[in-house]
Amino acid sequence: MAISKGPQAFPRTEFLRRLAAAKSEMKRREIDALIVSDTYNITYLTGYTANSGYVPQALVVSLHEEEPTFILRRQDAPAAIHQTFMDRDRITGYPEALIGNPTMDGYDTVIDFISEIGLANRGIGLELRGLSAKAAEKFGTRLPKAKIVDCTNVVTWIRIVKSDLEISVMREAAAISDAAIMRAAEVIRPGVREADVIAEIMGALARGANGKPGTTRFPNVSLCSSPRTGTPHISWSEDVFRDGSQINLELGGVRHGYCAGIMRTFSIGAPSERLRRVHEAEMEGLEAALDAVRPGSTCSDVANAFNRTIEKHGLKKDSRCGYAHGIGWLEPTASLQDGDMTELKPNMTFHLMLGNWIDEDFGYVISETFRVAESGVEVLTKAPRKLFEL
Amino acid sequence: MAISKGPQAFPRTEFLRRLAAAKSEMKRREIDALIVSDTYNITYLTGYTANSGYVPQALVVSLHEEEPTFILRRQDAPAAIHQTFMDRDRITGYPEALIGNPTMDGYDTVIDFISEIGLANRGIGLELRGLSAKAAEKFGTRLPKAKIVDCTNVVTWIRIVKSDLEISVMREAAAISDAAIMRAAEVIRPGVREADVIAEIMGALARGANGKPGTTRFPNVSLCSSPRTGTPHISWSEDVFRDGSQINLELGGVRHGYCAGIMRTFSIGAPSERLRRVHEAEMEGLEAALDAVRPGSTCSDVANAFNRTIEKHGLKKDSRCGYAHGIGWLEPTASLQDGDMTELKPNMTFHLMLGNWIDEDFGYVISETFRVAESGVEVLTKAPRKLFEL
Repeated sequence: MAISKGPQAFPRTEFLRRLAAAKSEMKRREIDALIVSDTYNITYLTGYTANSGYVPQALVVSLHEEEPTFILRRQDAPAAIHQTFMDRDRITGYPEALIGNPTMDGYDTVIDFISEIGLANRGIGLELRGLSAKAAEKFGTRLPKAKIVDCTNVVTWIRIVKSDLEISVMREAAAISDAAIMRAAEVIRPGVREADVIAEIMGALARGANGKPGTTRFPNVSLCSSPRTGTPHISWSEDVFRDGSQINLELGGVRHGYCAGIMRTFSIGAPSERLRRVHEAEMEGLEAALDAVRPGSTCSDVANAFNRTIEKHGLKKDSRCGYAHGIGWLEPTASLQDGDMTELKPNMTFHLMLGNWIDEDFGYVISETFRVAESGVEVLTKAPRKLFEL
Repeated sequence: MAISKGPQAFPRTEFLRRLAAAKSEMKRREIDALIVSDTYNITYLTGYTANSGYVPQALVVSLHEEEPTFILRRQDAPAAIHQTFMDRDRITGYPEALIGNPTMDGYDTVIDFISEIGLANRGIGLELRGLSAKAAEKFGTRLPKAKIVDCTNVVTWIRIVKSDLEISVMREAAAISDAAIMRAAEVIRPGVREADVIAEIMGALARGANGKPGTTRFPNVSLCSSPRTGTPHISWSEDVFRDGSQINLELGGVRHGYCAGIMRTFSIGAPSERLRRVHEAEMEGLEAALDAVRPGSTCSDVANAFNRTIEKHGLKKDSRCGYAHGIGWLEPTASLQDGDMTELKPNMTFHLMLGNWIDEDFGYVISETFRVAESGVEVLTKAPRKLFEL
């Protein structure tokens, strides 16, 4: 029997608006078909969130059709029918024989489709950063008359400005992030295993907040405790928490693929003088960065407001101060860093990520997810902005 | 201050053995340096499990050095010093200025390093499937005198045969998988939100089993309930479980990056006649497949033992019957499918994945993680092999 359409997070008009923006860019670049292979861009343009992107799949956006065509593994086609806004005849499953096949794969089906719709000798856009070298080569070889155009960030740049509907979803995700931070503060105690705290954090991320559960895969949770506070990306250890330990935590709630990242630092017992000093400088820097957020400012302005402030305290942060943020965590477009002249516009969203890994064995983290508001900033994450002393 | 070495999951000799196997393949292919960019291959060769692979990083294995050199983002270098077996001078952090930089990235540092060690005009192996088209192009352009060789699956094929130490770790992971399945069976009830069950499953995956917690990021948990049982990869829904619903669950415990996948099907109330019939056929097929596992058999033999058995019951499975399994879930080498003539050898490990998505709105799942034993099979996952009636 046919699978039904599932509940949709966004109305059809929202997806058509996103597609219209993509098509407008396609016209500008003189391409007739855009092959969207980036998992998060597919989510953005269709609502699809199933975890099937570990095998080839692609959304083909044609200038000549209102709805795109989603070509994916046959066994995942029912999920696409269920989750996306498109008509079911826009979902094409390719045969299982293309899985684990040394000579052909799902991209061959995508290429066949481009030929079938008569676009084999037109401009074809590819997302080259995410596409493997082998796949990109296949498009060139099998579509020799096409004009292949690198469209790596075409959809990603559209994603940076959210609609009000997307902002609502990110507010829901941020409330989940806050709940998970508060749960961590309740359960991090000396003698407790880090894994048991992770269990509680994962539970909070799934249970959600305000009656809205976490949906779809969670981003990585990083729990870096002494002596690992100088590292940003270790998951957690097998050890227990100890008196006097510092814990740097980064996590994010998710709704419909949209993340809202947050970082907080915890101290079991009184923080060291050094930690307290860094915390105070970073808090002042955070306020300065948020004050710099308004339409017309640049990403560089925000980063430099932070950098100038902490430099007054004798501190320095090597890494960027954040990045465009939304579906799938990091949007690889604008960075909050010196020299990034991207102009802030209303409803752009960023993870203001002020993690500062100062020494090999000492770092500090704080971050917020924010939206550029019409006349300033709206901070979406709302957990207490403090150094948690437990 | 310098960060200390963390507890190591494997002794140095184990990593040197793995590297020796890689170097032997490198000699055969006449390459002097292998650029390992696949996250899971890096874990395999070094013990590194931090979540930093979303920006460029690579392990350079040189024929002329005992230890490899790990080149990664500066902020992640302390994690590499802490987690890997190598001396600290084998870890090179590239500057933060290469992050979010439109013209250069961490691969430029890798290429510079190849030149510095005098190998710019020698054979250089790349893992082309995982490497983006842009990155692969850069290696070709910036190392014009090198002989670039596609070494996509060189390390992955070595990984397929585990050491006894790795098997011990996979047994630990499998015990966690079992615990999570049993927890699901306790908490799936009508009226309970799917997200609340996911919270319990995530908790079980973190808390672990037998005093060994889950470590590092979990693989996706798929919880596909009616009417989504014909789909394999939907995470979960926002809905509650209902009387009469069927639930297909796939999950995997993780220890030190090693997964042990398991699938079980649950029915709230008595299963339908169709579900019971499919279950019985699949169980018989599962037994037949396991009976076919022994050194000297092929992957094809195992798949066909399953396929022949269920065909007697009028069933058919389109997708492959499993795949090599270990670090990071799927190892992209051997598949348990008709025609895959990979010969089974002791200590190869597979996820015997018998999920069968029969109609758009009806499927059934069962799976086990197994090891090829000296004279047959050892099934690592041990949760009751049944259709769970709740």
